[in-house]
Amino acid sequence: MIIIMKPDASAEAIAKVTGIIEGKGLQAHLSRGDEVTIIGVVGDKSRLHGSNIEMSEGVDKILNVTESYKLVNKKFHPDDSVIPVGNTFIGPGTFTVMAGPCAIENHDMLLESAQAVKKAGASFLRGGAYKPRTSPYSFQGLEEEGLRYMKEAREATGLNIICEVTSLRALETAVKYVDMLQIGARNMQNFELLKEAGRSRVPVLLKRGLSATVDEWLNAAEYIISEGNPNIVLCERGIRTYETATRNTLDLSAVPVIRAKSHLPVIVDPSHASGVRAYIEPLSKAAAAVGADGIMVEVHPCPSCAMSDGPQSLTFEQFDSLMQNLKPYIQLAGRA
Amino acid sequence: MIIIMKPDASAEAIAKVTGIIEGKGLQAHLSRGDEVTIIGVVGDKSRLHGSNIEMSEGVDKILNVTESYKLVNKKFHPDDSVIPVGNTFIGPGTFTVMAGPCAIENHDMLLESAQAVKKAGASFLRGGAYKPRTSPYSFQGLEEEGLRYMKEAREATGLNIICEVTSLRALETAVKYVDMLQIGARNMQNFELLKEAGRSRVPVLLKRGLSATVDEWLNAAEYIISEGNPNIVLCERGIRTYETATRNTLDLSAVPVIRAKSHLPVIVDPSHASGVRAYIEPLSKAAAAVGADGIMVEVHPCPSCAMSDGPQSLTFEQFDSLMQNLKPYIQLAGRA
Amino acid sequence: MIIIMKPDASAEAIAKVTGIIEGKGLQAHLSRGDEVTIIGVVGDKSRLHGSNIEMSEGVDKILNVTESYKLVNKKFHPDDSVIPVGNTFIGPGTFTVMAGPCAIENHDMLLESAQAVKKAGASFLRGGAYKPRTSPYSFQGLEEEGLRYMKEAREATGLNIICEVTSLRALETAVKYVDMLQIGARNMQNFELLKEAGRSRVPVLLKRGLSATVDEWLNAAEYIISEGNPNIVLCERGIRTYETATRNTLDLSAVPVIRAKSHLPVIVDPSHASGVRAYIEPLSKAAAAVGADGIMVEVHPCPSCAMSDGPQSLTFEQFDSLMQNLKPYIQLAGRA
Amino acid sequence: MIIIMKPDASAEAIAKVTGIIEGKGLQAHLSRGDEVTIIGVVGDKSRLHGSNIEMSEGVDKILNVTESYKLVNKKFHPDDSVIPVGNTFIGPGTFTVMAGPCAIENHDMLLESAQAVKKAGASFLRGGAYKPRTSPYSFQGLEEEGLRYMKEAREATGLNIICEVTSLRALETAVKYVDMLQIGARNMQNFELLKEAGRSRVPVLLKRGLSATVDEWLNAAEYIISEGNPNIVLCERGIRTYETATRNTLDLSAVPVIRAKSHLPVIVDPSHASGVRAYIEPLSKAAAAVGADGIMVEVHPCPSCAMSDGPQSLTFEQFDSLMQNLKPYIQLAGRA
Repeated sequence: MIIIMKPDASAEAIAKVTGIIEGKGLQAHLSRGDEVTIIGVVGDKSRLHGSNIEMSEGVDKILNVTESYKLVNKKFHPDDSVIPVGNTFIGPGTFTVMAGPCAIENHDMLLESAQAVKKAGASFLRGGAYKPRTSPYSFQGLEEEGLRYMKEAREATGLNIICEVTSLRALETAVKYVDMLQIGARNMQNFELLKEAGRSRVPVLLKRGLSATVDEWLNAAEYIISEGNPNIVLCERGIRTYETATRNTLDLSAVPVIRAKSHLPVIVDPSHASGVRAYIEPLSKAAAAVGADGIMVEVHPCPSCAMSDGPQSLTFEQFDSLMQNLKPYIQLAGRA
Repeated sequence: MIIIMKPDASAEAIAKVTGIIEGKGLQAHLSRGDEVTIIGVVGDKSRLHGSNIEMSEGVDKILNVTESYKLVNKKFHPDDSVIPVGNTFIGPGTFTVMAGPCAIENHDMLLESAQAVKKAGASFLRGGAYKPRTSPYSFQGLEEEGLRYMKEAREATGLNIICEVTSLRALETAVKYVDMLQIGARNMQNFELLKEAGRSRVPVLLKRGLSATVDEWLNAAEYIISEGNPNIVLCERGIRTYETATRNTLDLSAVPVIRAKSHLPVIVDPSHASGVRAYIEPLSKAAAAVGADGIMVEVHPCPSCAMSDGPQSLTFEQFDSLMQNLKPYIQLAGRA
Repeated sequence: MIIIMKPDASAEAIAKVTGIIEGKGLQAHLSRGDEVTIIGVVGDKSRLHGSNIEMSEGVDKILNVTESYKLVNKKFHPDDSVIPVGNTFIGPGTFTVMAGPCAIENHDMLLESAQAVKKAGASFLRGGAYKPRTSPYSFQGLEEEGLRYMKEAREATGLNIICEVTSLRALETAVKYVDMLQIGARNMQNFELLKEAGRSRVPVLLKRGLSATVDEWLNAAEYIISEGNPNIVLCERGIRTYETATRNTLDLSAVPVIRAKSHLPVIVDPSHASGVRAYIEPLSKAAAAVGADGIMVEVHPCPSCAMSDGPQSLTFEQFDSLMQNLKPYIQLAGRA
Repeated sequence: MIIIMKPDASAEAIAKVTGIIEGKGLQAHLSRGDEVTIIGVVGDKSRLHGSNIEMSEGVDKILNVTESYKLVNKKFHPDDSVIPVGNTFIGPGTFTVMAGPCAIENHDMLLESAQAVKKAGASFLRGGAYKPRTSPYSFQGLEEEGLRYMKEAREATGLNIICEVTSLRALETAVKYVDMLQIGARNMQNFELLKEAGRSRVPVLLKRGLSATVDEWLNAAEYIISEGNPNIVLCERGIRTYETATRNTLDLSAVPVIRAKSHLPVIVDPSHASGVRAYIEPLSKAAAAVGADGIMVEVHPCPSCAMSDGPQSLTFEQFDSLMQNLKPYIQLAGRA
């Protein structure tokens, strides 16, 4: 921790700050410059909790040089994690493809989708049973009925299944069915939900918030891991910017940034990021090339009849073609 | 609804789209231009649900000319709403000041704060019992114990009390104590929580999400009102932008924008928006001048000892001074 | 300057960095923490130019604790500046209203506008002779002919005149006519233009760039002042964000931020910021209340015939009404 | 063009609008809905110039369905352009690598850099002779002396050379030396400079503005092409967002977006976008995979001694390694 004093901070003010620090058993290192004095703090900062040095007279600002997330931090866990999920693993050397409809609309469309994405090479079936929708008048999902169809699809195909949970109630139900829970962008800072996901021990796919920084995202993961669940995979799905040519702005730089800061795997969702079907294949290739551990893609038997996100869903044929065209990029990236 | 066809859409493609529309009992009005053909759709659009015209061959895009929120929409409810809360009202002709500590830290600091803000002229006591915190290692709130202190503070001072709820569980407990529920920025699209707040019938202060558009914010309010609770007040608290000189960018234009689009009252939170104590007074005056229905301000007996948000909290003296200096602006704006 | 070393920086790496610093005649203060070592640098940092410590082995990052702008910095010039322009002054105790059409379309509309804004109480006539337009096919301005009309309007009314310059060529011509040059948002980092404006000694209104931070804006002002021209007034005109309900997001917090960081006056342009006529009056009142030194407003004899920015222009009657309604806010803010 | 009337627009107001349209020789198609009436306009919209329908009574808003850029628009020029520059071509089937130092610091470092990037496989040497710098106290470039070194480097290596121009004066000098002009992010809307670049007929690399939309970027290109210069290549270099983990947010989706909207080639600059050396290789691979026509990379003989942008510059060895590792991605993307 570094404390920067104001240019006009008096000697008394500086002494008072160093007094607080030393009174808590920490060390204060002074650098007196011509313009400002800075104070380096060494020791266990948690002891300073409640002393609010930021408010002391003469203090300009405090800089924290260490991240607040610890268990997901690469500094303290340098080896990249491999996350076991269902019958497979996510992480180094693998490239996981999760595919399926945005929303589970009925039994047949889901089973049909599962067969198609399995055949094309996906290892996870995605499908929304609880849908977070901007307007209360939009379709909100089949809930537990949808989860039952997902389970049936797993039995029929051997695919692992992943569903988004949007509330504690949904989570309690979903853990009985799914191989992996998804926490969506809108709930990335729903801390109760994160903690409960942590207690559940079911693997979690944690999507980045609509305007979350990488640090906030990793702190959200820390909520899950600090409750005892280390099986977390991150998912970049685009951030909100001023640009409207795509639904969100896919931040592919986040993949190497996460790689530098955390040991957790990270996959990419080009469907929600772009909102445009034609951009999914180039962005999927870019995701493989940039080093992602996988992708999540929306596929629908009839995108023009989809109850949500039709314009960004691929048909079965398009998904099959994507998988063919993506394959050499996955291999080139050194992933199975 | 307007459908814009691609420049190269064939006559067959256009006929197919108009066929779908007319098949559902709606009217299709064609405008064939040199570059593009557009189709105006007249009638009850909900009948088109599931027909996904956006996916039809030759369709470039669909523009919705009507908002998806209805009950909070000024078009269908032109008179500004007056919201009864506790022993008072929020809306036209009033200026509500909500003040108190970010977090309820203990019994005495809360009671002391309540006396001070009451004396200075506030009509609501704010105080966090359930704190949404970026890091799991930060103080998370006193929960129900905090709510009991709030109730005691109400009895001692006559102030109305407002607390943030961050989960269904917190909401169920809070409704037994508070005059008004607060749904914070991070939960603006926690749809389960919005619906439950709607079913509770307790007045709700709905903060704008960290990067929510005004339309998304009004749709979030629609979730509450559509469950039967019309007692909603909006709160602008700054949006996320690239600028780091303030914690968030306070969007004061949102006040006249809301006034034009909705009948709901809107207040302003300059404390969370700026994150800097020195900016709170000028921004409070600006809030009154721009037409807000009130403000929410953080006040703490000892900001330099606060467990959260110290740098942006006012001392009792500073809050008293703010109230004195703000008064003529409130009067000038024609509010009590 | 603070150097933060990586957690695994070796003693040799640290010694090498302190060696570079001390070799340049500066002092290095070490704080060795459990996780990281930080080095405070004291002395004239310009001597480190070209030594690129950021690249040395073991260095994580460098934090600059002092701003790169000096002459416009309040730290070194604590008294707020009063800027003489034409027959008046801009700064503390004054509230300057600049008004007129977005573009000078012809002789009569400009003279008519000048008479109207003068009568309503403005002290500056604004009018665009050189228009920066997104599309090359939009009207680009009357250029020098427009400047001649501006001069004539000044002679007829006694108003001070201000025009935007978009190139060195335009600047060379404009300085012969205007009382104040305007450098627009798109040219805030057109450094050649800034330097030439600095050499001209004509007062400059420097608008904030479309997505400029306050620091970048003050550095742009530093370009002007460092060439010998201290007569600079800043103008907040909205920043680019994801929100589309207004054309830009007016950042009124920037007014107290500028007040804290610089001695230069700052005015507000609610017309370009909001892009909507109905929002101009509330935002003008908020500008006065937040402590701005004035406003710039678009007025047009017939907004529905304007060649640019019609939707955000006020009629003469509307401008007159704005001035009446704004007056008590200006007085309350302690400005003439 | 589509005109959307307000819900309460009177029959007279609607008749007045259609009267204006038909009076100019265009057709007006009415769609009267339950909530709103919309009017489709067919014919040459330029005839409506100055009639400002947006301001007519009862008009809510106007939607333009056609883009304002024409010559760079794919709709009117469906085949992707191949741009001849120096001794090579940029466009379909090629992958152009431009490399070199951020700033030309002296003769030897530039010549040395040229030899190194040539050997590693680049076909363009980049180097800044005119540097746009946020602070006036930073190094501003060698100007014409730098251009002479660039020319010498071309003669020595056969590399094509590209330099940024930041003013008309710089452009006039640079056209005598370079194969390609670069217009940087800060000057993307310096319209005088764009027009002069258009008149020069020298190929232009047009970088995206710091917060420019794709539409504004294409309109900027339209300024160049409309002056008679069709030899334009676009360069995505990151946009400004709230995220600070990277210097800017590289918007790789912009590559397929440009591909859909324009026939111009587009390359990617991972150095300026990320600001971090370690992210350049993964982002370069992603650029190739997403379909870019090339990349621009900063290389410096001694990044730790660089006068600008050291942290994001590659050493010769790192650049050579990048080129080796990138090669299979370029081949896989079907580019030479």
